[in-house]
Amino acid sequence: MAKTAGIVIIGNEILSGKVQDVNAAYLVRELRLLGVDVKKISMIPDDIEVIAAEVSAFSHQFDVVFTSGGVGPTHDDVTIEGIAKAFGSRVVRSPELERLLRSRYGGNVNEARLKMTEVPEGAVFISEDGLWLPAVSVENVYIFPGIPDLLRQKFDLIKERFRDQPYVLRRVYVKEGEGNIAASLNALLREFPELMLGSYPELHHRDYKVMLTLESKDEGYVQTALGRLLALLPQGSVHQVS
Amino acid sequence: MAKTAGIVIIGNEILSGKVQDVNAAYLVRELRLLGVDVKKISMIPDDIEVIAAEVSAFSHQFDVVFTSGGVGPTHDDVTIEGIAKAFGSRVVRSPELERLLRSRYGGNVNEARLKMTEVPEGAVFISEDGLWLPAVSVENVYIFPGIPDLLRQKFDLIKERFRDQPYVLRRVYVKEGEGNIAASLNALLREFPELMLGSYPELHHRDYKVMLTLESKDEGYVQTALGRLLALLPQGSVHQVS
Repeated sequence: MAKTAGIVIIGNEILSGKVQDVNAAYLVRELRLLGVDVKKISMIPDDIEVIAAEVSAFSHQFDVVFTSGGVGPTHDDVTIEGIAKAFGSRVVRSPELERLLRSRYGGNVNEARLKMTEVPEGAVFISEDGLWLPAVSVENVYIFPGIPDLLRQKFDLIKERFRDQPYVLRRVYVKEGEGNIAASLNALLREFPELMLGSYPELHHRDYKVMLTLESKDEGYVQTALGRLLALLPQGSVHQVS
Repeated sequence: MAKTAGIVIIGNEILSGKVQDVNAAYLVRELRLLGVDVKKISMIPDDIEVIAAEVSAFSHQFDVVFTSGGVGPTHDDVTIEGIAKAFGSRVVRSPELERLLRSRYGGNVNEARLKMTEVPEGAVFISEDGLWLPAVSVENVYIFPGIPDLLRQKFDLIKERFRDQPYVLRRVYVKEGEGNIAASLNALLREFPELMLGSYPELHHRDYKVMLTLESKDEGYVQTALGRLLALLPQGSVHQVS
């Protein structure tokens, strides 16, 4: 069970625009559905010092941290070293991972592939059916590959351990612009200070100008706030509620 | 002219998976084409303290910083307040922006819309043809709206001021997996330590398994390194060079 999460996307390819990250958006959606509040996403280069500093900060700030990228066999795969450094631990070769690697690659195991058996000392392996390599965690940090298919497969198999109470979300589509409804929103928040209230303008939709989102883990609170909002908004301004 | 950049994407809607950010990927691509090295992207909530801390850190670390989001008229638009706090300055209403706002909205200017005339004290306005509202900067921080169309329009009109020497990029598509070419890449980097060398596995492509990228601001250096790489890779393993 996790209440807050941070996501660290690692890779020069993202920051130089060669590859567009899709893992952050995937994890954010999945974690939200699990009831976990993602507090921060960081995208950083393949740089041991930067990874160490970011993972250390995230590990202290959030219940759980997910990293993506930098765990392959080549020179630019330095995530393991960075995370080890974050926790002041050494990088070691795991005999368990080496056994799995050798059973997959047989005679094709070389120094480069053996790099993939390296983990920060004290790492925990989470083996689930369907994974040929276990998911690896250190303290509250879960280390995922950057390849989207592999990340999704691994996350999917271990995600239940993060499940928390779900969010309840209602949406209200409004025909007036933000400038004309801001006062209603402020009034609503004075009465419902715990409500997570979002206001998102939409330039190109024919039927509405703003999508409002009302969210809480308390369903009754959201429903009562929704009723109040519908009374506060200018008459005839609501296009749809969902 | 800017050598390094940081991007701060602000908005609860991104972190809760309601809206997928497209601004980071856009800015990264554009900045790379301009020859600017994006060092970090951060996605954070609509929270004044968090914005202030992040913008302050980015402003010290990078030549130029771009923020996206949180500049509208509603309660969750707190970017201006956060950035003011980052620089220890006050939020003030700009008479210049108010004049522009009144000439656009006429009688429809209310308290909510006037919020959009607020800027950190000492902000600089960059008026360019085609912008009804100027781009706003404070120190080395450029403040952009989160709506992708508006961000692109503003960035496009001011981007030339960030142009630096361009990157030269060559790509090599290889039929062998990373585990079989890692030694060649390590050998290349020993000879060309300044080369930006990326290695990106591709699971689903018929014709190749890895895309290698060679990059530098020195064209001759990239070309020489490319020649050497082609000699180092296993014979017959190159699918294509571009």
